[in-house]
Amino acid sequence: MTTSSQYRDRVRRLTSGGRFDAALIASPQGLRYFSGFSGFGGAYLVLGPSGSNMVVTELEAPDSDSAFFEDRLVVEKSKPLLPEVIKVLSSELGQGILGLEEEFVSLSLFEKLKGLGRDWVGISRDISAMRSVKDEQELSDIRHAIEISEQAFEQAKEFIRPGVTENQVAARLEMAMKEGGSEVPSFPTIVASGVRASNPHALPTGKKIGENEVVVVDFGATYHGYASDMTRTLFVGNPPKELHLAFDAVLETQLACFSSLRVGQPLSEAASLAVRSLEKYGLAKYYIHSLGHGIGLEVHESPYLSLTSNDVLSDGNTFTLEPGVYIPGLGGIRIEDDFLAWEGKVSKLSSLPSRL
Amino acid sequence: MTTSSQYRDRVRRLTSGGRFDAALIASPQGLRYFSGFSGFGGAYLVLGPSGSNMVVTELEAPDSDSAFFEDRLVVEKSKPLLPEVIKVLSSELGQGILGLEEEFVSLSLFEKLKGLGRDWVGISRDISAMRSVKDEQELSDIRHAIEISEQAFEQAKEFIRPGVTENQVAARLEMAMKEGGSEVPSFPTIVASGVRASNPHALPTGKKIGENEVVVVDFGATYHGYASDMTRTLFVGNPPKELHLAFDAVLETQLACFSSLRVGQPLSEAASLAVRSLEKYGLAKYYIHSLGHGIGLEVHESPYLSLTSNDVLSDGNTFTLEPGVYIPGLGGIRIEDDFLAWEGKVSKLSSLPSRL
Repeated sequence: MTTSSQYRDRVRRLTSGGRFDAALIASPQGLRYFSGFSGFGGAYLVLGPSGSNMVVTELEAPDSDSAFFEDRLVVEKSKPLLPEVIKVLSSELGQGILGLEEEFVSLSLFEKLKGLGRDWVGISRDISAMRSVKDEQELSDIRHAIEISEQAFEQAKEFIRPGVTENQVAARLEMAMKEGGSEVPSFPTIVASGVRASNPHALPTGKKIGENEVVVVDFGATYHGYASDMTRTLFVGNPPKELHLAFDAVLETQLACFSSLRVGQPLSEAASLAVRSLEKYGLAKYYIHSLGHGIGLEVHESPYLSLTSNDVLSDGNTFTLEPGVYIPGLGGIRIEDDFLAWEGKVSKLSSLPSRL
Repeated sequence: MTTSSQYRDRVRRLTSGGRFDAALIASPQGLRYFSGFSGFGGAYLVLGPSGSNMVVTELEAPDSDSAFFEDRLVVEKSKPLLPEVIKVLSSELGQGILGLEEEFVSLSLFEKLKGLGRDWVGISRDISAMRSVKDEQELSDIRHAIEISEQAFEQAKEFIRPGVTENQVAARLEMAMKEGGSEVPSFPTIVASGVRASNPHALPTGKKIGENEVVVVDFGATYHGYASDMTRTLFVGNPPKELHLAFDAVLETQLACFSSLRVGQPLSEAASLAVRSLEKYGLAKYYIHSLGHGIGLEVHESPYLSLTSNDVLSDGNTFTLEPGVYIPGLGGIRIEDDFLAWEGKVSKLSSLPSRL
C-alpha cells in the first residue's frame, strides 16, 4: 500500500511549483493518486497552504477513513457538498491563483468556481506527467493486476470452443478476474469471434463461437485502482489462411516495436515503425488504431504511442504495445502486452504466450 | 430497438427550441441517446441546420454503422479527430449560438472550441429533462435490464453462505448478469458482509461471509445501455436483533414512500417522509444518503429524490427508492427497488421479494 508519506510527497511535488496557490482535485483518479480515496464521488481535495484538505459527504466518509489528508470536513447529507468545498477552497486560496484539472472540470463546475482567486491555471498535464512515472508501489500493483488477469485468462481459455457464446466467455473471464481479487474490469471485456473480430472494439454478444473462427479477447483487471490491459487472439479450428498470415505479421510487428524502444525516444517513432512493419505484408491499410498507451489509474493514460503523439519514453512508464489488423468481412488479429521502462531498460511485464 | 425516426425526433426536439443554432454532443450518454452509438469515445455528433452529423475515427466507424446520422465523416487515424469536428461544427454554426453539454464539456475541450459562433449556451439540463421522461422502447429496455439482474440474483443468492468470500459472490452475480445478456454491470457490484455492511458503498473484498452476518448486495445490469439498480439485504444465520428491527423499519419506509408518491409531487417530500419514517424507530441518524435517483442511460440521473432536490415526479420517470440504515460497528440494511411513473400512476418495476 502507498504510505501517508508517499501521498504527502505527491501533494508537495504538485503544489511546490509555484504556478498556483491552491488546487481543487475533483477527478476520481486525482483523488486516488493524491489520497488513496477510492469512493464513488462525493469527495474533493483542496490542496493549499495548510496542506491536503478532504471535503467529503457523510455517505462517503467511511471510504475516506483510510485515505491520506491533513484535515477533513464531513458534510451532513442535509447540506449540498459543493458550497462547503468552495468555503474551504476560498479560505485556502485567498486572492491567489487556483489550480484546476482542466481535462476533468466541466463548464458547469467551473461556473460555480468563478470568482474564486484572481485567476486559474490548468494542472491536468502536471498530474498526468507525474502519474506517467510510476514508483515501485504502483509498479507492484500493476504487476499484480497483470497476474490476476493472466491467471483468469488461463482459466477462461479452456472454455473457448465452438457453441459457447461470446458473452459466456466474457462472463467467465470477468468472474475469474474478480475471484482473483480484481476490483473491477479495467474496461468492458471484448470478445469478438469470426467476422465480428474485424471490429477492434466489438463488445461480446450472444453469438456462438463457430468452427474455424478467430476469437479476439481484450481484457484487464484492476488492483488498488491500477489497470492491466492485454489482448490475445485464438484460432478455434482452422480459420482462413489470411488470418494466419496476419497473426504472424502482427506478432512480428509487436516484437519489432518492443525491441526498437529506447528510453528517451519519441513514441511516435515506434508508432511509425508499426505501420512500416505491417506495410511489408500489405496489411497497414487494415491497421486502424494507435500502437499503445500508458496504463495506471486509468487504462488509457500518458504516454501515448501514436503517429501524432508528442510523448517521449521515460523511466517509470508502463504501457501497452497492441498492433492489430482488421480485415472487413473476414476477421481480425490483435496482440497486446504490457511493458515497462525502468532504469533505462524496456521490459515486458505480461507473460502469457502470444500463440495459444 | 429505437428506430431512426425516433432518434430523428429526439434531435428535432432538442434543436427546435431556438436557444442555439448548432450543438456539439460529446458525452457517451448523449451520443447514445441521439444516435444509438455505443462505442468507447472517438465520436462526436454535430446537430445543426443540416441535421445530425457524426464525426468518428476510423477505429470507431464500424460501431457507428448502425447508429442514426444524416451525414457522417470518418477521420483517418493519421489525423487528430477534434480539428475535423471543429470544421464541421463551424460550418453548421456560422456566427450562431453554440449549444454545449455544460455538465460534460471540460475546460480543456472548451478552450479548443473558443471562438466558434458568437456565444454558447448549456444544453445539459434540456437533455437530462428529455432523458428523464422515458418512451416505451426505453421502458422496455429498462424492464429487460431489471429482469436480467433479478434472474442473476436468484442464481447468485444460492451461493451466499458462510465461508464464501464477498468477491466470489460479486463474481458469480456479475457472471450470471453477463450470461443473461447484460452488457456491463451498471456500476461495480457491492457485496458487504457483517460490520462492512455499515459502509453503504463497500466494494467486495476477499473477506469470507461469517456465521450470523448480514449481507448487503447492490447490483445492476445494462441492456441497450439502460441500467437497472437494486439492493437486497440477506441474513445469513441470525445476525444481531438490532439489524432485524432495522430491516423492518427500512422496508416499512420504502413501502411508505412508494405509496405516498404522486405524479406532480416534489420529490423532496418523499425524501423527507423517509427521514420521518426512520425517525420513529430512532434510526434516522443512521440513514446517511438520499432516497433514490432516476435510472436510464446512466445509473444515476434525473430525477433525484433527496432533501435538497428541486425535481418533481413526472410521467415517464424511472427511478429507485432505496432507504438504508448503517450502524457503525454492527452492520447495515438497504432495500432498493426500481419504480415507474406512467399515465399518472406509480408502479414497481422490480419483483424480487424484499425478504429473502
